[in-house]
Amino acid sequence: MKFLPYLLSCFFILSSLFSVGYAQSAKYEEDARFIRKIYDEAMTQSQAYEWLRSLTKDIGARLGGSPQAAAAVEYTRQMLDTMALDSVYLQECMVPHWVRGEKEVVRVVNSFKMGSVDLDALSLGNSIGTGPKGVTAPVVEVKSLDELEALGREKVEGKIVFFNRPMDPRQMNTFAAYGGAVDQRALGASRASKLGAVAALVRSMTNGLDDIPHTGGLMYEEGVMPIPGLGISTLDAELLSSLVAAEEVRVYIRNTSQMMSPKLSYNVIGEIKGSTKPEEIILVGGHLDSWDVGEGAHDDGSGCVQSMEVLRLLKALGYQPKRTLRCVLFMNEENGLAGGRAYQVASDAAGEYHMAAIESDHGGFTPRGFTADGDASIFTKKFRKVNKWLPLLEPYGLRLAKGGSGADINGLKSQKGLLFGLEPDTQRYFDYHHTAADVLEVVNKRELDSGAAAMAALVYLLDKYGLD
Amino acid sequence: MKFLPYLLSCFFILSSLFSVGYAQSAKYEEDARFIRKIYDEAMTQSQAYEWLRSLTKDIGARLGGSPQAAAAVEYTRQMLDTMALDSVYLQECMVPHWVRGEKEVVRVVNSFKMGSVDLDALSLGNSIGTGPKGVTAPVVEVKSLDELEALGREKVEGKIVFFNRPMDPRQMNTFAAYGGAVDQRALGASRASKLGAVAALVRSMTNGLDDIPHTGGLMYEEGVMPIPGLGISTLDAELLSSLVAAEEVRVYIRNTSQMMSPKLSYNVIGEIKGSTKPEEIILVGGHLDSWDVGEGAHDDGSGCVQSMEVLRLLKALGYQPKRTLRCVLFMNEENGLAGGRAYQVASDAAGEYHMAAIESDHGGFTPRGFTADGDASIFTKKFRKVNKWLPLLEPYGLRLAKGGSGADINGLKSQKGLLFGLEPDTQRYFDYHHTAADVLEVVNKRELDSGAAAMAALVYLLDKYGLD
Repeated sequence: MKFLPYLLSCFFILSSLFSVGYAQSAKYEEDARFIRKIYDEAMTQSQAYEWLRSLTKDIGARLGGSPQAAAAVEYTRQMLDTMALDSVYLQECMVPHWVRGEKEVVRVVNSFKMGSVDLDALSLGNSIGTGPKGVTAPVVEVKSLDELEALGREKVEGKIVFFNRPMDPRQMNTFAAYGGAVDQRALGASRASKLGAVAALVRSMTNGLDDIPHTGGLMYEEGVMPIPGLGISTLDAELLSSLVAAEEVRVYIRNTSQMMSPKLSYNVIGEIKGSTKPEEIILVGGHLDSWDVGEGAHDDGSGCVQSMEVLRLLKALGYQPKRTLRCVLFMNEENGLAGGRAYQVASDAAGEYHMAAIESDHGGFTPRGFTADGDASIFTKKFRKVNKWLPLLEPYGLRLAKGGSGADINGLKSQKGLLFGLEPDTQRYFDYHHTAADVLEVVNKRELDSGAAAMAALVYLLDKYGLD
Repeated sequence: MKFLPYLLSCFFILSSLFSVGYAQSAKYEEDARFIRKIYDEAMTQSQAYEWLRSLTKDIGARLGGSPQAAAAVEYTRQMLDTMALDSVYLQECMVPHWVRGEKEVVRVVNSFKMGSVDLDALSLGNSIGTGPKGVTAPVVEVKSLDELEALGREKVEGKIVFFNRPMDPRQMNTFAAYGGAVDQRALGASRASKLGAVAALVRSMTNGLDDIPHTGGLMYEEGVMPIPGLGISTLDAELLSSLVAAEEVRVYIRNTSQMMSPKLSYNVIGEIKGSTKPEEIILVGGHLDSWDVGEGAHDDGSGCVQSMEVLRLLKALGYQPKRTLRCVLFMNEENGLAGGRAYQVASDAAGEYHMAAIESDHGGFTPRGFTADGDASIFTKKFRKVNKWLPLLEPYGLRLAKGGSGADINGLKSQKGLLFGLEPDTQRYFDYHHTAADVLEVVNKRELDSGAAAMAALVYLLDKYGLD
């Protein structure tokens, strides 16, 4: 890309040719000016990246129940305290406390083709350990829970089940591809155990072919004897698959992860009280916990600091909301949702009404828009109202679509407000998700800040016009 | 971001709620199916990333006139030769041959505050050298060419002029911010020389604050005595500015870059002949040369391999175009545009008609759409036609807007076809542009491939329906 003579004539005109008139009508001019101010402030003064630097570099990975999670609660509470909000408080929740233990060993033993090979592996969250001696067994590969079922107990008993269905690369939304593969990680160990398997190995949830193992939660279904479940990198999944195709492969697994007793932890909440309709709440949030590898930078440090930045932005611009704006940093999204549940129970008990809630939990990448969700009885009408604001958002590359919101706020649907998910570009998310690679360096400051600006713009419109 | 129970209910619905009906009308169904096939093929079988690996890792930086540029010509010609096109050929052009020489030294000399400090610097492309002894002079800082003019000869003569206006972070399109700052790099040395300066230092063209110096072309205006021009990193620009504010600062500069005699080089062209309207040409292209640092991965290896992939995709799907599809890898975009000019001269001389041309030269990031440009006499009518296809492109996150196309194809406007630029997300581009950091590792395979798919989808529609 070259310089002056050509460049000066070719900037991208942001609004499409045929929506300019609408977006620039008198009705929207004041709003367009204010949203421009939000972006200007965010792109020049945002604190989000510096907050994220502390969360990732000073504190690091912060799995629910860990000392780092406690540090993150205290750090974000203190940061919210500096913002002259109307109130900042903690909300109790009991969280599971799982620990990874020693570095995992997953070793192909005496393969005819390769000899012994160590595979890049991570215990899946909530997994039990093998015990210090480990376990060795033959490997049987399947591509799905159904294929496992079809094999039956005879071919599975005493084996290690290897789940190897990749995420579908044709899904342009990588979350859809994730959704189409993650049943193997979530339920694979349980289903394998039911048929007498001794452990489960799961191909990592990523479109890439690399040597980075991914963790992430598994759940043991009721009445099932827990067996260890571990993720292996996609390159090692390809290798193991090629070995299994050629010979009987035995694998040695040793992991010492275990569930400890539950711990007291907290959601962190900061609030600006509404001036005329304080009973209508607009929530922005992300989750403060992360998995215990990497730094939880995209998942979901980004969503937390963006949510904090939304309040900072509106304060900095002197905006006095009519409605109550609440930033909620949820605890324990990754392995239990205890924070989200505690929040909902308390909110319902207090008879609160969340007119709107926005969660950012798809990474700190360039925002492409928002997905919206809500109770069927109110969704269409309220979403139509939001769609009228589209010409104000399109100049910033934002669109609106029906879709999910976020795991922490999903339960608020019963309050019959509108729930939103910030939808960033998804192509890179699963390069980092639940891995040692999810570190500050892979978050781009401008992408992060523009996500905060997008959320603040939507909050502004929701607050100004309401949905009812 | 958590797992199964929540996820399965919340995938992003790609089309906006209110355009689904249009996009799914009978008229568009066949096209929608074919475009889906293009994306499926691109996201599973694309060769773009492997070609880019060779261009970046095996060949590397490939400034016009360099041995690496010659290697890139031969490599891409051979790759196009494997694709069973109707013709593959080289088109001659004479290119300038500039060489950087030894590692640059830019040293603050005996600052009261800091002592001696070496700054991270790169000679700007086309710059002359200081000669082996270097030059030492006091520094005068300005924020613009106008500010320099206002200072006048008295305050500039014998000095090193330091241009330090940052790119505007409020511009959400970073190319607009680049366009607003790059006059300092392109013209700074010339304007400083007119007032008797001995050298120019220019703040690097990036929104980031880092220690990576950016190169890029400068031009010496006619009749001006050339003086050396060098880029320094943004962190060092901040440092130098703080020193200049506090004391008289002297800087020692030594660079040995020089212009050699012009070299013969080539555009690389591959073509599928149209079946019924071969005289109407649809061009896809990027530029094969890069600056001489880094690997030219985003700028513009990405655009080259995407353009090659467009032809591969359509061949792989058995598509027989009505019109002639031509992939052109232009030489010497970065410091002269000799390839683009040679192409245009030959095309005009042959009486060709480029019905459409698409250049990809804004990096291999997730595509956001296309900008379109054309002669005023035809633009509105033809662009309206293209806009009718928008419902086919929107599901892939693509939009259309009036804007620039690409430096190499811009001259084809006189043939009165429509010119397009592939417009990817721009937030990260200037983290890498013209630096040692523009390497394969910062290109995401899925982002790159989806850009090729977007181009192929537009080519398919242009070929099927035409613009006239």
